[in-house]
Amino acid sequence: MKKIINDPKNFVNEMLEGILVAHQDQLKYLNDDFRSLLRSDVTKKNKVGLMTGGGSGHLPLFLGYVGKGMLDACAVGGVFASPSAKTMFELTKAIDNGAGVIYIFGNYGGDVINFNMSEEMAKIEGIRIEQVIGNDDVASAPKGSENDRRGVAGIFFIYKIAGAYAEEMASIDEVKRIAEKARINTRTMGVGLSPCILPEIGKPTFEIGEDDMEVGIGIHGEAGIKKGKLESADEIAEDIMGKILADYSFNSGDEVSVLINGLGATPKEELYIIYRKIFKILNSKGINVFHPYIGEFATSLEMSGISISLLKLDDELKYFLSKPAKTPFFEQAQL
Amino acid sequence: MKKIINDPKNFVNEMLEGILVAHQDQLKYLNDDFRSLLRSDVTKKNKVGLMTGGGSGHLPLFLGYVGKGMLDACAVGGVFASPSAKTMFELTKAIDNGAGVIYIFGNYGGDVINFNMSEEMAKIEGIRIEQVIGNDDVASAPKGSENDRRGVAGIFFIYKIAGAYAEEMASIDEVKRIAEKARINTRTMGVGLSPCILPEIGKPTFEIGEDDMEVGIGIHGEAGIKKGKLESADEIAEDIMGKILADYSFNSGDEVSVLINGLGATPKEELYIIYRKIFKILNSKGINVFHPYIGEFATSLEMSGISISLLKLDDELKYFLSKPAKTPFFEQAQL
Repeated sequence: MKKIINDPKNFVNEMLEGILVAHQDQLKYLNDDFRSLLRSDVTKKNKVGLMTGGGSGHLPLFLGYVGKGMLDACAVGGVFASPSAKTMFELTKAIDNGAGVIYIFGNYGGDVINFNMSEEMAKIEGIRIEQVIGNDDVASAPKGSENDRRGVAGIFFIYKIAGAYAEEMASIDEVKRIAEKARINTRTMGVGLSPCILPEIGKPTFEIGEDDMEVGIGIHGEAGIKKGKLESADEIAEDIMGKILADYSFNSGDEVSVLINGLGATPKEELYIIYRKIFKILNSKGINVFHPYIGEFATSLEMSGISISLLKLDDELKYFLSKPAKTPFFEQAQL
Repeated sequence: MKKIINDPKNFVNEMLEGILVAHQDQLKYLNDDFRSLLRSDVTKKNKVGLMTGGGSGHLPLFLGYVGKGMLDACAVGGVFASPSAKTMFELTKAIDNGAGVIYIFGNYGGDVINFNMSEEMAKIEGIRIEQVIGNDDVASAPKGSENDRRGVAGIFFIYKIAGAYAEEMASIDEVKRIAEKARINTRTMGVGLSPCILPEIGKPTFEIGEDDMEVGIGIHGEAGIKKGKLESADEIAEDIMGKILADYSFNSGDEVSVLINGLGATPKEELYIIYRKIFKILNSKGINVFHPYIGEFATSLEMSGISISLLKLDDELKYFLSKPAKTPFFEQAQL
């Protein structure tokens, strides 16, 4: 295991301490607990609170999207592990401005259980809670079983769009409506080339042959749908785009945003080589790209590989995607 | 060699094609040559032109900093290879607005020769040229031989500060003066944990033991100053900071900006674990950090490792560092 770390047991807390001293103008934490992160600017009375949470090891996910125009808080878990319901509940109380709180998180067992528990506790306190559960990973369950799918990089689009609408003081019903639309309109699939190593475990999360790739792999190394020889960038793009486009109604004349996400160790150069082909494929189908996002948005430590996400746009999704945002890990001027 | 690419011969041009289709709102190219990149917005008459250039494989370097508040053009070379003098010259003519052009590039043999040739050609056309040559890598030559040092990630600070001043329509003498001040006030040192593979070569750029690291390594795998067992993040931070702080007058009461740069495969989590210790070290010496930059700014394909850069600030450097910028790879609102 070759990592620039200290004692593996301190990996998460030392990372969080680094983030907090680096970004204290934008982030603060609650109750002396580094794992309860929230925006340090005062949010407005009656603004809907937006909260996420999830395991560590996926930066910028999840905490990296806490900031202006995006989220209000993040409950941080151990490496690839859910944060506690108590952390979620304390944060919920802290960010409720009287308009309720929406939990936006990925579809993983531990997170679902803990967010449900936190919701129960919050309801007792009289706080209205809604949930939006990211399930964009096409490879993780067949069409027709969308609710069984895992959430991966596409959750970025939900954060961005819901965050922009909440910033405009929309009601909880309205913010939930648009977050659900962004969720339903997003599809993702990835390919892994090499595994990552969890600091406290010290062994690779999965095995993969020297010349092989795994299509459809999850961001914790969950099994994909196809293992085989590494293909060319163009072949990978064709394969993944074929599956994504067949899974939802992406049609000629549509406008989409594309997210090309590096899983951690993959050079940015390769993300652009993939994007080149994706742009051609979409072009050939008469689908127009609005503002692609290319970089690292949801990683798996030093895993190498990429994921491709498509968000089908309409006028209001495009309007909110275009709004400015500013977090420690993501900054966008008005498009 | 495990890369998401097509024919290795097309690596650079396909990457550039991807960048151009992704960022056509911000970038364009000259004379049907993808390797001649410039800002697509019209720059003002009499604005000093700022140009860089260098090998591919270092994204966001070099081309990633072409945009508002930073550079006007970039000449793009092959992987780890200098762009041609002809490319540089054509771009020089294109971006000269009557106020002259400053070449800002790293201190590497091929780049120096080609920028000098381009300067000669430009002078014949009556274009005034100045040069600012990044040499921030403390490990690459001893104190007293600063002009022999290589340029690495710290060139980001020169781009940012010179770019902001040029945007305010300062004269070429003034922009050169501040760019030189940023250059002189910047120090960097890195550590490598694993090599990268050049697509057309297919073999690692250097050898490094399974449990080893190399301190002072260059961004093309140039030999460092110390090979040995991998140390902890805190030990690495102490070691590198000791050398950087001893190399220039960083004193109690000073204000610095810090750049923690990932070389390609190193997770962001590790960058923050390193930053945590660097912040403590600076704190203990009475040195104040203004706005740290933490992420990938100058990479070496999938090399794993990091570099640490310090820029000693004064009022005007801080003023221009704080100005907004917007390029395809870097965005900052007014600080």
